Amino acid sequence: MTQSNIIIPRKLSGFMELPPHKQMIFDDMMDKIKEVFKKNAFLPLDTPVLELSEILLAKSGGDIDKEIYRFNKGDTDICMRYDLTVPLARFVAMEKDNLSFPFKRFQIGKVYRGEKAQKGRFREFYQCDADIIGMEQLPIPADGECINMISEIFKAIKVDNILIQISNRNILFGLCQALDLQEKTEDILILLDKMPKIGKEKVFASLLDLQISEDKANMLINVAGTKGTFEDVLAKVKDLCDNQTYTKGIQDLESLGKYLQACGLEKDRYILDLGIIRGHNYYTGTVFETIMTTHPEFGVICAGGRYDNLTQYFSDKKMPGVGLSVGLTRLFDLLDKNNLLPEYPLSPVKVEIIPLGDTLEYCLQVERFLKNNGIICETNWDERSFKGKMKDANKRQIPYVCVIGESEVESGKLALKDMISGTQQSLSKEEIVKLVK
Amino acid sequence: MTQSNIIIPRKLSGFMELPPHKQMIFDDMMDKIKEVFKKNAFLPLDTPVLELSEILLAKSGGDIDKEIYRFNKGDTDICMRYDLTVPLARFVAMEKDNLSFPFKRFQIGKVYRGEKAQKGRFREFYQCDADIIGMEQLPIPADGECINMISEIFKAIKVDNILIQISNRNILFGLCQALDLQEKTEDILILLDKMPKIGKEKVFASLLDLQISEDKANMLINVAGTKGTFEDVLAKVKDLCDNQTYTKGIQDLESLGKYLQACGLEKDRYILDLGIIRGHNYYTGTVFETIMTTHPEFGVICAGGRYDNLTQYFSDKKMPGVGLSVGLTRLFDLLDKNNLLPEYPLSPVKVEIIPLGDTLEYCLQVERFLKNNGIICETNWDERSFKGKMKDANKRQIPYVCVIGESEVESGKLALKDMISGTQQSLSKEEIVKLVK
Repeated sequence: MTQSNIIIPRKLSGFMELPPHKQMIFDDMMDKIKEVFKKNAFLPLDTPVLELSEILLAKSGGDIDKEIYRFNKGDTDICMRYDLTVPLARFVAMEKDNLSFPFKRFQIGKVYRGEKAQKGRFREFYQCDADIIGMEQLPIPADGECINMISEIFKAIKVDNILIQISNRNILFGLCQALDLQEKTEDILILLDKMPKIGKEKVFASLLDLQISEDKANMLINVAGTKGTFEDVLAKVKDLCDNQTYTKGIQDLESLGKYLQACGLEKDRYILDLGIIRGHNYYTGTVFETIMTTHPEFGVICAGGRYDNLTQYFSDKKMPGVGLSVGLTRLFDLLDKNNLLPEYPLSPVKVEIIPLGDTLEYCLQVERFLKNNGIICETNWDERSFKGKMKDANKRQIPYVCVIGESEVESGKLALKDMISGTQQSLSKEEIVKLVK
Repeated sequence: MTQSNIIIPRKLSGFMELPPHKQMIFDDMMDKIKEVFKKNAFLPLDTPVLELSEILLAKSGGDIDKEIYRFNKGDTDICMRYDLTVPLARFVAMEKDNLSFPFKRFQIGKVYRGEKAQKGRFREFYQCDADIIGMEQLPIPADGECINMISEIFKAIKVDNILIQISNRNILFGLCQALDLQEKTEDILILLDKMPKIGKEKVFASLLDLQISEDKANMLINVAGTKGTFEDVLAKVKDLCDNQTYTKGIQDLESLGKYLQACGLEKDRYILDLGIIRGHNYYTGTVFETIMTTHPEFGVICAGGRYDNLTQYFSDKKMPGVGLSVGLTRLFDLLDKNNLLPEYPLSPVKVEIIPLGDTLEYCLQVERFLKNNGIICETNWDERSFKGKMKDANKRQIPYVCVIGESEVESGKLALKDMISGTQQSLSKEEIVKLVK
C-alpha cells in the first residue's frame, strides 16, 4: 500500500475517548457506582442500544426528535436510545408478569444525542440510572432510598461536598390551584425554574406578563424561594393552602423527611428547596437535583424524581416509579478539566520484570508467582535494549523493576530496583511480594 | 390517555435482553474476564460505538458492508462499529506518539452487525478483546501472553474443558510457495479451512478442480491434517520445506511452544493444529481457535491471531499486533440454552427486613448495620400485607427474612426466619451478620 492511500485517522467530534490511564479512573468510578447499586439490592438490566422508533418516540414531541440518531435498516425504523428510562418502561411493560414489585433496577450504559457539539456536551455519554417501579402504588420510602443512594454514590467516588436539593412538585401545583392559576401552571413552572439564572426581578416581570396579579406573583416567588431543613421549610409552608394536591405534597415531604432522617443521611447533605422543579414534564411528585457545593458552576451532577406512570404508553397498568441518574461522562469531564480527579499512575504495573540473557523461562515463573500473589506485573520480552526498557519503565511510572540475569536464576535472589528512591535490593520472590504489597 | 393509544411494547429482534437474574450471571462473567485482562496489565480503552464510515470501511470490501448499520446525520456519514479492532487501529494510529509500546489494551463492548437474524446470531453483541501492539516489531512472547490469557479467562468464568488450537499461517503459505502454488494460496486456504466441515474427499476433489496435481493436493491435505503436541507436530513438519516463509513459521511456532511451556499452560489445554486457518485475511502469522471439548458443537468460542500491520490504512508506521476476542453474548446464549450456567439466586438479597407496625426507623437502622457488614439486604416498606411480603420473599428465593415488630425494637432481639428450613431464631444484629455470612 502506498502512502497516498492512507486515511487520516480521526474520531467523530462530541465523543469522549480517554487515554488509557484516565480510562482506568473512569472505570474505577463506574465500578464504584455499580457497587453502590448492587449493595442496595438493585438488579442489573442491559437493554439494547437500538430500539424501534415507534417505541422510543412514543411519548416525545418537539425538540428531542432532532437530537435523536434515527435511521432505517431494511424496512425497520430504528433509533439509538437517548436515555435509559424509555427502554426501562418498554422492558417493564413487556415483562411485568415475570417481575417482582417494587422492581429495583440499575443500568449503566451509553446513550446518544445527536445535538450540536458544544463545550461540555457529549453526543455519546454514560448514564448511571437506578429506578424503583411499583405496581399500582409505590410508597415514599422508595424516593428516600434513591436520595440516600445518591449520597452513597458520591461518597464512593470521592466527590464530596455535595448537596441534594429536594422538592415535591405538588407544592407548586397545589399553590397554583389555590391561586386559581391552574391553566397557567406549566408557564409558571418554566419561569420559576429559571429564577436561579435570571433572578427574581425578571421572573416577577414575566409573571405579570402572564396576567398574574402582583400579590400572586409575589406569593409564587416567595414559596419557590423557600429553602432550608425539612423541619423549617415545612413549618413555614405547611398551612399555606389546603387543597388535595398541596396537602399530598406536604404529606409526602413529611414522610420523606422522616425516612431520610431514619436512614442516617447526614443533615448537611440535603435540603428542602421548593424552587427545584426539573425540566421534564413527566415528574409528578418528588424531584431532586444534586450539586457540588464547592463547584456550583458544574450545575446539576445527578438528578431524578418520581413519575406517576412510567409505562403509560405501553400498558394500561399504572406503574409509578422514582429514579436517579448520574451523567458520568459529563461529570468526569468536569472533574478532569478542574484537576479534581484522584491521582492514578500511568500504568497499573507494579513490577516490571526484565530478562537479561536467556532467562525468559525463569522470568515467567517469577511473573506467575507475583501475579498469583495479587501483584500486577509483566515480563518485558520486547526486543529493545536494557537501557530502553529501564527508560520506558520510568516513563510509565512503574514503581519497581526486577532485573533477572543468569546469576539471579542460580541464586534465586532477585535484584529489585525501587524506581522512585533509586535503591536496589537483593530479594527472594516471597520478599518481593511482601515489600511491594 | 385512552387505551387505544397504547403501543404494544416490543424490542428489535436479534438483540439479547436478559431477565435481571440472568443479567447478574452475565455481568459476573464479564467482570471476571475484565479481571483477567487487568491482572495481566492490559490497559482499558473505551472507543465510541459510532465511527466515521470513512474510517470503519477503510479496509472492508464485499460482505461486511451489507451487515453494517450505516446512516447519515447532517452531512456526516456514520457507522456503528462491527468489531473493536478497526477502532483500535484508528486509536493507535492517532495516539501513537503518546503511547508506550508494546501497547497492551483490552476493550469489552457491544458491536453491531445488521445481518439477517437467525438462530444463535445476534445483531448486537459483546466482544471481549485484548490486543498487544508493537512499534515496528513485536516478538512471539506477545502471542504467548494472549494464548495463556485465553486459558485464564475460561478458568475464571468456569467454562472448563477447553482446547486452544494453534497454528501459524506461514506454514501453509510457505508450503504453497514450495509447491509452486503461490497464486492459488488464497483459494487453497479457503478450501483447507472447510475440511472439518466438508471432509477430506471433497476438499481433495476441489483442489484438483483448481488444476492442482494429486500429489500436491495430498501433501496439502496431509499437512493441514497434522495436529498434536508442539514437539510432535514440529518434529514431523520441520524439514518439509526450506523457504523463508516456511522457516519463519516453524521458528515462530518453536518460540511460541517454548513460551507456553515456560508460562505453565497445561499441556491438555492446547495443541498445534496446522489445519487452523481463520477466515479473516488480515492474519499473517500465529492463529488460534478455542473450542469446548465437551461441546465441540458450540464451535469456536474464542479466537484470534497475529496481524502484521494493524494500522496500514491509517499510518505509514508499521505496527504489528496480536489479539484475542471472546464473543461473550453468543457464548452466554449457548451456555444458557444447554443449562451450563452456574446456579444463581433470583435475587441478590440475603435478608429481607419486614417492618410490623411503626418500626420503619428501626428497620432502616438494622438495614444500615447489615449493609455496612457486607450483607445485601432491604427493608420492605411496600404497602402490601405481611403475608404478601412473605410470599414475595419466598418467590424471589431470599434465604432469610427478618421481621421487626415493636417488641423486637424494645428487646433488640430480632426474629430471623430461615426460608429454606422454615426455622426461626431470635438474634441480635451482630449474630445475624455472623449467621448469614
